[in-house]
Amino acid sequence: MDKMKAVYLEKVKEIKMKEIEKPTPGEGEVLVQIKSVGVCGSDIHYYNHGRIGDFIVEKPLILGHESAGKVVEVGPGVTSLKVGDRVALEPGIPCRKCEHCKEGRYNLCPDIVFMATPPVDGAFVEYVTFPEDFAFKLPDNMSYDEGALIEPLSVGVYSTERAGLKAGMKVAILGAGPIGLATLQAAKVYGADVAISDINDFRLSYAEKLGADKIINAATGDALEKFNEYFNGGADVVFETAGTVPTTKMTTKVAKRGGKVVIIGLAPADTINYNFVDVSAKELDVLGIFRYANVYKRSIDLVSKGEIDLKSMVTHSFTLDQVQEALEFADKNKDKAIKVVVRP
Amino acid sequence: MDKMKAVYLEKVKEIKMKEIEKPTPGEGEVLVQIKSVGVCGSDIHYYNHGRIGDFIVEKPLILGHESAGKVVEVGPGVTSLKVGDRVALEPGIPCRKCEHCKEGRYNLCPDIVFMATPPVDGAFVEYVTFPEDFAFKLPDNMSYDEGALIEPLSVGVYSTERAGLKAGMKVAILGAGPIGLATLQAAKVYGADVAISDINDFRLSYAEKLGADKIINAATGDALEKFNEYFNGGADVVFETAGTVPTTKMTTKVAKRGGKVVIIGLAPADTINYNFVDVSAKELDVLGIFRYANVYKRSIDLVSKGEIDLKSMVTHSFTLDQVQEALEFADKNKDKAIKVVVRP
Amino acid sequence: MDKMKAVYLEKVKEIKMKEIEKPTPGEGEVLVQIKSVGVCGSDIHYYNHGRIGDFIVEKPLILGHESAGKVVEVGPGVTSLKVGDRVALEPGIPCRKCEHCKEGRYNLCPDIVFMATPPVDGAFVEYVTFPEDFAFKLPDNMSYDEGALIEPLSVGVYSTERAGLKAGMKVAILGAGPIGLATLQAAKVYGADVAISDINDFRLSYAEKLGADKIINAATGDALEKFNEYFNGGADVVFETAGTVPTTKMTTKVAKRGGKVVIIGLAPADTINYNFVDVSAKELDVLGIFRYANVYKRSIDLVSKGEIDLKSMVTHSFTLDQVQEALEFADKNKDKAIKVVVRP
Amino acid sequence: MDKMKAVYLEKVKEIKMKEIEKPTPGEGEVLVQIKSVGVCGSDIHYYNHGRIGDFIVEKPLILGHESAGKVVEVGPGVTSLKVGDRVALEPGIPCRKCEHCKEGRYNLCPDIVFMATPPVDGAFVEYVTFPEDFAFKLPDNMSYDEGALIEPLSVGVYSTERAGLKAGMKVAILGAGPIGLATLQAAKVYGADVAISDINDFRLSYAEKLGADKIINAATGDALEKFNEYFNGGADVVFETAGTVPTTKMTTKVAKRGGKVVIIGLAPADTINYNFVDVSAKELDVLGIFRYANVYKRSIDLVSKGEIDLKSMVTHSFTLDQVQEALEFADKNKDKAIKVVVRP
Repeated sequence: MDKMKAVYLEKVKEIKMKEIEKPTPGEGEVLVQIKSVGVCGSDIHYYNHGRIGDFIVEKPLILGHESAGKVVEVGPGVTSLKVGDRVALEPGIPCRKCEHCKEGRYNLCPDIVFMATPPVDGAFVEYVTFPEDFAFKLPDNMSYDEGALIEPLSVGVYSTERAGLKAGMKVAILGAGPIGLATLQAAKVYGADVAISDINDFRLSYAEKLGADKIINAATGDALEKFNEYFNGGADVVFETAGTVPTTKMTTKVAKRGGKVVIIGLAPADTINYNFVDVSAKELDVLGIFRYANVYKRSIDLVSKGEIDLKSMVTHSFTLDQVQEALEFADKNKDKAIKVVVRP
Repeated sequence: MDKMKAVYLEKVKEIKMKEIEKPTPGEGEVLVQIKSVGVCGSDIHYYNHGRIGDFIVEKPLILGHESAGKVVEVGPGVTSLKVGDRVALEPGIPCRKCEHCKEGRYNLCPDIVFMATPPVDGAFVEYVTFPEDFAFKLPDNMSYDEGALIEPLSVGVYSTERAGLKAGMKVAILGAGPIGLATLQAAKVYGADVAISDINDFRLSYAEKLGADKIINAATGDALEKFNEYFNGGADVVFETAGTVPTTKMTTKVAKRGGKVVIIGLAPADTINYNFVDVSAKELDVLGIFRYANVYKRSIDLVSKGEIDLKSMVTHSFTLDQVQEALEFADKNKDKAIKVVVRP
Repeated sequence: MDKMKAVYLEKVKEIKMKEIEKPTPGEGEVLVQIKSVGVCGSDIHYYNHGRIGDFIVEKPLILGHESAGKVVEVGPGVTSLKVGDRVALEPGIPCRKCEHCKEGRYNLCPDIVFMATPPVDGAFVEYVTFPEDFAFKLPDNMSYDEGALIEPLSVGVYSTERAGLKAGMKVAILGAGPIGLATLQAAKVYGADVAISDINDFRLSYAEKLGADKIINAATGDALEKFNEYFNGGADVVFETAGTVPTTKMTTKVAKRGGKVVIIGLAPADTINYNFVDVSAKELDVLGIFRYANVYKRSIDLVSKGEIDLKSMVTHSFTLDQVQEALEFADKNKDKAIKVVVRP
Repeated sequence: MDKMKAVYLEKVKEIKMKEIEKPTPGEGEVLVQIKSVGVCGSDIHYYNHGRIGDFIVEKPLILGHESAGKVVEVGPGVTSLKVGDRVALEPGIPCRKCEHCKEGRYNLCPDIVFMATPPVDGAFVEYVTFPEDFAFKLPDNMSYDEGALIEPLSVGVYSTERAGLKAGMKVAILGAGPIGLATLQAAKVYGADVAISDINDFRLSYAEKLGADKIINAATGDALEKFNEYFNGGADVVFETAGTVPTTKMTTKVAKRGGKVVIIGLAPADTINYNFVDVSAKELDVLGIFRYANVYKRSIDLVSKGEIDLKSMVTHSFTLDQVQEALEFADKNKDKAIKVVVRP
């Protein structure tokens, strides 16, 4: 049996490379040689704390769920891909049978198998087997790094769709981390008028480069006041991507009457004294977001056509030997890194 | 100039009948002799506190906004109504010009003139003038009391529409006051499977009579547990009508994955530690409700066709001389009154 | 290997019973003993013509796709059903992988395997194996006949959902055959005000019994005129279920400005000079319907709760030996049969 | 009383300038000095035929409904505009009272007063009075010509909204006249992948310049085949803007399963043998478009922000003395003119 390298989170803050068996693709599966993996905040969180909410790392776990690679073998029955195809991997495989799967919201499938969510292994590894219909072919003009970053982009694209964004709407984005920037780029595809806030000037400068019409530093002034000055009358849609208490609370004030609030960031449970008087009086729609569904293909098309720029978002790269460095670096350099990738 | 009687809230807890000028209908208006006015919680709140949030009673105010009456005179240009017609009055007249009015959400019009909301006078009076297009003709088989109760019913009908209710869905209703019962009846029109909770057995018995499939007394047990037992997997839609902190908080637990929460009751601002982890993980839609729009006509049709029973909801009546008694009675007898009406 | 009886359409107008191998349930499948099968217009059409459009009966085919039965064996991995459970079978099994399946419109899956659609066999047989997630458990208060009729009912329930029906809307239904009557019943769940037309008094009498507010005999008068008299200003939603040229053409005239037309019946291609001036000037939504998706469970609930009456729709029954008689009878007795079932 | 010039269509093919009374703005109205008026196909049709369908020119009529100008006087109660403001005029003033107006679809108002639709006069005139809320302020970076062309652009923007366009969708547009090009530009705001067909190379070259991803000359090849080659599997949305029989019929073939067809062009009534088998089997949404509602402001924003290019669409201009020449020129030079404007 062939062997391959795999990088495990052994326990909190301890990463270890091991040799394990190289998998074989089953019916309808392809074997993908991983070429690029983005480091996500959730990877860092598992690395630092060993858990996210109810998801607990109880045995060694391979992290990494933003990935792309090359098809090196195809299993029986595969028709849509062939050896040599370059693919982006949508990391959650749903059961395909429950009511959520059947209704088109497979992201809500309670039995979804999602990479790097305990106990499911992720992509910091040389090879993975994957169902062909969740491996999306990359056009020639896209790199593996861009393929990996389709994952965070999908959150942004999905969020704009769930918001029912229309051309030219007024959009506020709270937080300019990778998800905030992905949402910014998705909103700009709609020709939105976007104001975005953060407390980090480096990230805001990226936001400006990626098309933000207005950047607001919440550390050096009253963000709400600045939003309201910019959007006289409020924003049509407010995307919360920072996951903090003050930004989540602020959403009802930034939104216009009849507007929408989209909750992408994840603030700790029961910490937010939300203003339901605003929710009622403005008749807001407050919409939760859990990952994404049905947007991978279209996200790839948007990047391939130049509507969205993922290349600029990759600021640093590491090798598979350096996963621990990559995690540490990404954790400690939010003021100079946007997206860190690992290239096995 | 003719005179008429009008009942004013002079100051907190002080009601006074006066003689004032009888109004004359202008262009497109009708003069309506008021025949029935429902007492609403907001009337009682103004009576007890002189204000609701930012709306402050600064000069004597005529209360009452759930009303029906008879057309006794028509102004110039009126084509849809004639003297003798019996009408229900939709109490908010919007500006018809702002973006909200033009987009069909006239309930969000910032310049709406809404009966019994300071400084606009209401319906505890003998006559009012009204735009013909907000005075809806009652069929012969409906009484003035039923016409008055179209107002609270409209909140329920509108809420089910905003929730996008489909036939046979699982519906939880928190609170069985008049609005909870109106929402119950609207949901039952859709053949919904409805469980409803309250802390008052009298109200729950009404809920049962009006079609609730399951009643839950939250005072004598764990309401959440009972909802979850009944709706194995959660409710498709949760309507919060009680306006309390615990019921509002509970909404995220009662709703299923992918479900909707509709906020009708109004809890005090910034008092609710809402669970945004649930909002995200279940990808909930949390939808505010502010009054209603575009449902008066259809609500009348539903009552006229026997789909909804408003008659049973009127438990007590008073005369125009007795407005103060009516307010006091309604305030103090929630365990034996559902809806109190004043019949001028 | 065990044997069982199966009834084949050998060629046009020739039905033959054969002994074939009894199937064995695979992974995730159950073995169902068929107890009731509804005869559908499509079965009759295959029997008479050997084809429907591009679907051609090229080798002997088992007809019947409206079915219910008893679970007599469960395959490996089955968790939701057990031996003895009574189930209704949703007859189309989609690929679960294409974009339509993932987006929740699995009825549009190009690779769907649908009972009694060549070359896929149907339910005029003693046993079938079926994926557990398309076999829906029947409550104790429902019969197998009712279980079989969930199939045509699903078309009606799905159509009302696709129309976005709201409580109390004005609904016109063209055609009072089984699908027209199923749509009528689904619309009545919403408290709709329904007028229905047909050329057959027997069917119209059924419509009346099942709740139609107005019946219109199109053979003895001008149906359009009668619809317009009844719905002063037009219907909110028009359901075309007859599949004829004049009824399809009439839809634009019966609908109100801003209304919806739902095309359920199937008129021959390119035979309908449709009035696109009406489509534009009234800004209609004309919505095609292809079978249904995601409504089986809710349809069962509605019948179980008494919101919909399927029992009355079964007018005649035959045995498995009598499939040919059943087909002939159903074909020739539209003036005295609503739904014919075969009970193996 | 002051006088002003007005250009009347006296009868078919006869244009005459007259001196008439200059109007005075009433309550809530502004007096606008017209600076630019686009010539629309409907103007040419009235000029050539004296009627469009049921709208008949029975007395001299001022044509022109795509207009912009300068506010030179404000009536009592006007608050949103002042003398000197430059405005684009949304040409249809609805009744504000009917169900369509209240529901946000004021374009369907049966009592709408629409410029240059008999018997309502239009904009080939020096001054018009206009309700302030239908006169939209132009930003400094927009010309009067651009202001006038907001009208046809609004049709495109509205159509993309009614289609529920999402970022990066596949869009087919049939017809590259001014409305086809406006729809193209609106679709490109959404990052759509657009293929557009016409029989006129000049128009197609414009389409290419304005961002079309693929142009198809239907005169020199099989347009359907070329669309299907380009959109392997069909288009998500098909916009019919040509108003011809073959393009309207082709829509069901160009759309994908589950796709949408938007009918903007107006083919003569009852001339189109539409393929309802496709409508059903693909479960299409066929959506009529009647003018537009609630998009003027956002359309102006999109032009002002450079998302849409109206300047390039103005190819020729005339003076108020030359209205007849303008109409004749526009009618006869579809191979070299896109949009002709009259500048009073």
